[in-house]
Amino acid sequence: MPLGQIKTLFFDVFGTVVDWRTSVIRELEEFGQKKGFEADWAQFADDWRDLYQPSMDAVRKGDREWRNLDTLHRESLITLISRHNITGLHEEEIDHLNKAWHRLNPWPDSVEGLDRLKKKFILNTMSNGNVSLLVDMARYANLPWDVVLGVEPVHAYKPLPQSYLGNAELLSLEPQQIMMVAAHNDDLAAARTLGFRTAFICRPKEYGPQQSNDLKAESDWDIVTDTMTGVADALGC
Amino acid sequence: MPLGQIKTLFFDVFGTVVDWRTSVIRELEEFGQKKGFEADWAQFADDWRDLYQPSMDAVRKGDREWRNLDTLHRESLITLISRHNITGLHEEEIDHLNKAWHRLNPWPDSVEGLDRLKKKFILNTMSNGNVSLLVDMARYANLPWDVVLGVEPVHAYKPLPQSYLGNAELLSLEPQQIMMVAAHNDDLAAARTLGFRTAFICRPKEYGPQQSNDLKAESDWDIVTDTMTGVADALGC
Repeated sequence: MPLGQIKTLFFDVFGTVVDWRTSVIRELEEFGQKKGFEADWAQFADDWRDLYQPSMDAVRKGDREWRNLDTLHRESLITLISRHNITGLHEEEIDHLNKAWHRLNPWPDSVEGLDRLKKKFILNTMSNGNVSLLVDMARYANLPWDVVLGVEPVHAYKPLPQSYLGNAELLSLEPQQIMMVAAHNDDLAAARTLGFRTAFICRPKEYGPQQSNDLKAESDWDIVTDTMTGVADALGC
Repeated sequence: MPLGQIKTLFFDVFGTVVDWRTSVIRELEEFGQKKGFEADWAQFADDWRDLYQPSMDAVRKGDREWRNLDTLHRESLITLISRHNITGLHEEEIDHLNKAWHRLNPWPDSVEGLDRLKKKFILNTMSNGNVSLLVDMARYANLPWDVVLGVEPVHAYKPLPQSYLGNAELLSLEPQQIMMVAAHNDDLAAARTLGFRTAFICRPKEYGPQQSNDLKAESDWDIVTDTMTGVADALGC
């Protein structure tokens, strides 16, 4: 692969680097135990994630002004709290629960792979998460980012072209100097259209046992692997 | 000091964290030796820095559209190359010389101080440098930033209020949760007006033996010290 021009790696984060589902279920269960609420917390987590794309869609389409992901997550959380008949929560408790997304555990191979990749490449977050979410997560999970940008500084959610191109501009990079690393075929397709190189990490358990999407590479991505250390191997790190 | 609300430290970088003058002189001398040019390189470095504020002023006032610091530095460099009768340089050589500002050495106390501060606080760059400059410098000098924002994502040079407030917004912070750390009284004055806490590090050699400004704290900043480790001491890190 003629990948010698690559200077910087852009990472999708939710699902690619961290196991959001298991982590959010754990946070919800802890909350339930502490507060004495019972619910199907796995279903609650899946419901929360089901509201993720629709909540961003309204912003992508311009039906709503820019709102960062913490704000969208909190709106969705309030909807679900009501739907699950959970009552009597203080604002601070809702904020803490919402910040479950700041406390996500990495997949077992993520930190080792990122540490190896960092020796040769600049590592940037190219996530729909907001900056403070990503910074808190990095400190929680020991993710060695060189720079934490993503969609918030450019006010455009993925897969809008401006999200990727705005990050490239902030890092003074041409598209061919960037490799997008993601567990999602549609993310890589959007990045490739703009001239980025692409690495697919298969994460078949991201959405739990029922996962039906992204079980395999759907195009000839530059790298196809099932771990972050596999990306490091492929890039000679 | 009632500094318990502070969550994040914002750092001025040129002069506060890194010794830009000695580093740029070294880069110019290496360039001169390699290419066979003779000049007063200390004067060249000082001339380059003298063009720094005027170049940003045109952008601050809106006389010019946004241009990042690499671009402004390069324009100033071309002016000085001509003034010093240096001819025959390739574009790549000018680019390399311009990136001297990406390869600046920290003051002896900076890395230890930042490493200690990072255990307790989130560390953000609040610099007029552009993102790629700051990222390259961090990798070169082992600066352990959690996040590299600064003026470029918000398109406003310090001390415009939007530069500080835009960074606060990107990190979901209220002003009282932020401490600005700088070797420049005017930077701290601008930040304090907005409600930030303030730490002054005296760097009497930043501008070389002739320095006449910022030789002492000109107000009752929350912390006054002469090293980054002194900031860590004062904050109990």
